[in-house]
Amino acid sequence: MSQIAFIGLGHMGLPMARNLLKAGHHLKVFDLLPAAIDELAKEGAQPASSALDAIAQADVVISMLPASRHVEGLYLGADGLLNALKTGTLVLECSTIAPQVARNVHHAAQERGIELLDAPVSGGTAGAAAGTLTFMVGGAAKVLAKARPLFEAMGRNIFHAGPEGAGQVAKVCNNQVLAVQMIATAEAMAMGVANGLEPVVLAEIMRQSSGGNWTLEKYNPWPGVMENAPASKGYSGGFMAELMAKDLGLAQETAQASGNSTPMGALALQLYRLLLKQGKGKQDFSVVQQLFTEQ
Amino acid sequence: MSQIAFIGLGHMGLPMARNLLKAGHHLKVFDLLPAAIDELAKEGAQPASSALDAIAQADVVISMLPASRHVEGLYLGADGLLNALKTGTLVLECSTIAPQVARNVHHAAQERGIELLDAPVSGGTAGAAAGTLTFMVGGAAKVLAKARPLFEAMGRNIFHAGPEGAGQVAKVCNNQVLAVQMIATAEAMAMGVANGLEPVVLAEIMRQSSGGNWTLEKYNPWPGVMENAPASKGYSGGFMAELMAKDLGLAQETAQASGNSTPMGALALQLYRLLLKQGKGKQDFSVVQQLFTEQ
Amino acid sequence: MSQIAFIGLGHMGLPMARNLLKAGHHLKVFDLLPAAIDELAKEGAQPASSALDAIAQADVVISMLPASRHVEGLYLGADGLLNALKTGTLVLECSTIAPQVARNVHHAAQERGIELLDAPVSGGTAGAAAGTLTFMVGGAAKVLAKARPLFEAMGRNIFHAGPEGAGQVAKVCNNQVLAVQMIATAEAMAMGVANGLEPVVLAEIMRQSSGGNWTLEKYNPWPGVMENAPASKGYSGGFMAELMAKDLGLAQETAQASGNSTPMGALALQLYRLLLKQGKGKQDFSVVQQLFTEQ
Amino acid sequence: MSQIAFIGLGHMGLPMARNLLKAGHHLKVFDLLPAAIDELAKEGAQPASSALDAIAQADVVISMLPASRHVEGLYLGADGLLNALKTGTLVLECSTIAPQVARNVHHAAQERGIELLDAPVSGGTAGAAAGTLTFMVGGAAKVLAKARPLFEAMGRNIFHAGPEGAGQVAKVCNNQVLAVQMIATAEAMAMGVANGLEPVVLAEIMRQSSGGNWTLEKYNPWPGVMENAPASKGYSGGFMAELMAKDLGLAQETAQASGNSTPMGALALQLYRLLLKQGKGKQDFSVVQQLFTEQ
Repeated sequence: MSQIAFIGLGHMGLPMARNLLKAGHHLKVFDLLPAAIDELAKEGAQPASSALDAIAQADVVISMLPASRHVEGLYLGADGLLNALKTGTLVLECSTIAPQVARNVHHAAQERGIELLDAPVSGGTAGAAAGTLTFMVGGAAKVLAKARPLFEAMGRNIFHAGPEGAGQVAKVCNNQVLAVQMIATAEAMAMGVANGLEPVVLAEIMRQSSGGNWTLEKYNPWPGVMENAPASKGYSGGFMAELMAKDLGLAQETAQASGNSTPMGALALQLYRLLLKQGKGKQDFSVVQQLFTEQ
Repeated sequence: MSQIAFIGLGHMGLPMARNLLKAGHHLKVFDLLPAAIDELAKEGAQPASSALDAIAQADVVISMLPASRHVEGLYLGADGLLNALKTGTLVLECSTIAPQVARNVHHAAQERGIELLDAPVSGGTAGAAAGTLTFMVGGAAKVLAKARPLFEAMGRNIFHAGPEGAGQVAKVCNNQVLAVQMIATAEAMAMGVANGLEPVVLAEIMRQSSGGNWTLEKYNPWPGVMENAPASKGYSGGFMAELMAKDLGLAQETAQASGNSTPMGALALQLYRLLLKQGKGKQDFSVVQQLFTEQ
Repeated sequence: MSQIAFIGLGHMGLPMARNLLKAGHHLKVFDLLPAAIDELAKEGAQPASSALDAIAQADVVISMLPASRHVEGLYLGADGLLNALKTGTLVLECSTIAPQVARNVHHAAQERGIELLDAPVSGGTAGAAAGTLTFMVGGAAKVLAKARPLFEAMGRNIFHAGPEGAGQVAKVCNNQVLAVQMIATAEAMAMGVANGLEPVVLAEIMRQSSGGNWTLEKYNPWPGVMENAPASKGYSGGFMAELMAKDLGLAQETAQASGNSTPMGALALQLYRLLLKQGKGKQDFSVVQQLFTEQ
Repeated sequence: MSQIAFIGLGHMGLPMARNLLKAGHHLKVFDLLPAAIDELAKEGAQPASSALDAIAQADVVISMLPASRHVEGLYLGADGLLNALKTGTLVLECSTIAPQVARNVHHAAQERGIELLDAPVSGGTAGAAAGTLTFMVGGAAKVLAKARPLFEAMGRNIFHAGPEGAGQVAKVCNNQVLAVQMIATAEAMAMGVANGLEPVVLAEIMRQSSGGNWTLEKYNPWPGVMENAPASKGYSGGFMAELMAKDLGLAQETAQASGNSTPMGALALQLYRLLLKQGKGKQDFSVVQQLFTEQ
């Protein structure tokens, strides 16, 4: 069992850390909010007073932070963890951040003999709680081989996307497709219903036909089509629209750096920003359905 | 076995008619191109000299025509088939046309005591040949019950979408989602590859994740990812880009009539029209991939 | 002075008819709403009991109707005016309709020896009242020469756009550009202000630079930038968003018929439809500004 | 007359420096390409061997560089010019860069008692040569008052956009509107011509109507409409498509930072990137016309 420093105990990090505890690992945990530390301490984790304190005895560091700047702040610079970690430490950086930033952190880690993987997740808070997350991993295959049991304590599908940064690239590609097909499904549902079709019937026809996609399979945006989907629970739970806007922004940043044209992805971002202007950023991202119906 | 008049023997109609012949039905067939008639005549169909000749003894009429105006021309007006068919004839109108036109033909049929279904298909020429088409059917459930064996001779999934016109609405909804997710997939493939990912790896990660959709499952637009996909065969075969543009145009016509906003669907149409301007209308619709890569 | 039948006395038609009266013409007027007829009757027009009654003695017919189907209904078919008008009558069809419908009416008029011009207007209700409308005219130059004094009684700029239907084509092209640049201006105003610029300063810089356009010149969508713009009067007056959506729909219908790709125009239509879903269709079309700001 | 260090002698910087020379100023000039230095040296400028050499005696520094990273590299960091300039130096930073970067350079300058203005230009190489550029200036009004004669030696319209960074914000807002209306005009020209209108006639109607904008006034994208426009000279000269893509990218970066939704601006960027993929990045930005016509 590893001695793990887990940093970042938000909606995703906390249940991920909990699954590692359940699997028998020793965790020392840190977050800027003491409440999250206390909660895990009750379940057997060792509380840390700072990120530096958390890593003192660690063989493994796992971080789950909100955005690129937090990851840069944690690892890089004179006070960054990379300067404090012992050679050979394994770092699993699970935040969703810009591929370029992930590459920078990788390079800094390599210079110090630290093994790092960028490993953003998909699956949302439900997947984090159930231990069924998908990890998209960038970095060396042999490092992933070593880290695999840890990922498996937190997730189900562990993909090796490629070299450093590739996990982030795979994540933004995937989430861009997800956002676009969510909006496309919402448009089609609204148009079909306005033309007299039963939502359940239309959803089922498309699901089984060439329009089939993950949102039709698991996450229909029309209220009442799927009992357990956020759409049927007032668009609560799930994956917040503002987080989808964040990921679409990372995708555009990536496209900008590589000169790619992504008209659908760009439009998806703009439509999510319209939703945010309407105050719906904290609702599940399938709330984009409401753009296309009278409110 | 029914006495069937089959009108419209193009890339789709001809193999559909052939499957009905194989199932033991009696067919009298007509097309504006004599070659198609001759081909089926060799296989046991009775050639007709006109649409009116074809329907003379028919219990069932099946039509598969290019566009709304051809369907209006065949059935409506003083010289239209609806004025010539006997009461109780069953009409399976399988063309992909505007829902409003389908409703008009339905209403005219009802006035004359003729049972009609709008039943556009998906599955392409390969599905037509293999008898695995999907039918999306609009009209009365009891008429569909009667027609079901005929559809099953030509296809595999037979959906009852709803009342008159609903088959067409389901089709345009489905194909709009299909076009959008094809483009979204193509954008993501280009962006991922430009950022260093292996196409096969990226495709597989998205397929198994929340970006999963039919194009990733069956029809990846990046050459070489799927051996049998049109993308791996020079974008030949499959479903022509100009036919996708046609369907997206019908979707916009439908949205216009019902006042729906479909930003993704509208953008998909515009991008397909750009492709057509580049002379790629006869290639498979996954050729949209080439918009996003250097040519 | 001509003997004019004026049909269609809505927000635009009524002030246009009034300007013809002021110029000394004899008008017999008809509308489905008696109130409008009564109002003009008080000002010297002769009331008609039907469109057919209105045209009985007319040398000139002017029509100003809401949409394509009304124009088809008025002029075409067995009961249409074209069957009742005497040879040599001059018809000024000022409605904004699909170019294809305008061409159909032209051809029907030509067969009956009637001189017709399609002559949609821009300038809104204010321009109609002030007699400063712009007319975009399709049809023969020599017919326009004859009609010019009548147009000049109602407007200021009289453009000969080309042959039959060209007036409508010019109108949809113009209004599509107008809608797109209104939205582009609104986006830029919101972005500039969010980044600390004074709206009046930003508006003035763009107006005088390469971003300059008619909306910056006459019709800024940001409240308070221009005292007399609808934006400064709660988006009242001006040109209703739902009418802009109608014109953008005609543009898409035109693009569909000719196979043109118009990504900006298509997106503008979708954004206006989002506004309509929000219940803002009756406000001035510059209310699109509110899509881009918190409400 | 000022002692000016001019750094960055590209397509824009060189003619700007020349106009300052003509106005009687003393210039010491630097560029990474010696040819540009030599050219100006022949016209009376003093050549510098480095940026540091250029500023040795300068009262004023003017820089005109390609992108944000060059400006950061020139001014910031331990080796940056801001550490070498004497207190009270006036810096006119004329590059087009991200507003956030401009603000960072402003703040660093303020800490060192250096007066800086961000002053991006519009007007292209022709405007630079003719001394008719537009300057959009961010920074203190009293600094602008001091700098105004220098700007007037290089340009015609000098706008005070607001505080630090405001010049860059105004520039990206303006250029985003410009790109969108260029594309909108190109779409409309293609659609009108495809529907039978004469390009010159359509252009003139829109120019005088509510579709009027700067591109219709000065820079029509349809070949032959305006004799001196790049479109009539094989899309040579003018403002390169790749530079417009750069500016649209800055606009999206700005929108991302402030959370603005700019669907038209985002789509414009994607369409320009499609053009770049087609190898047209070095042509004038009005070449976007060719997206909408058969090539």
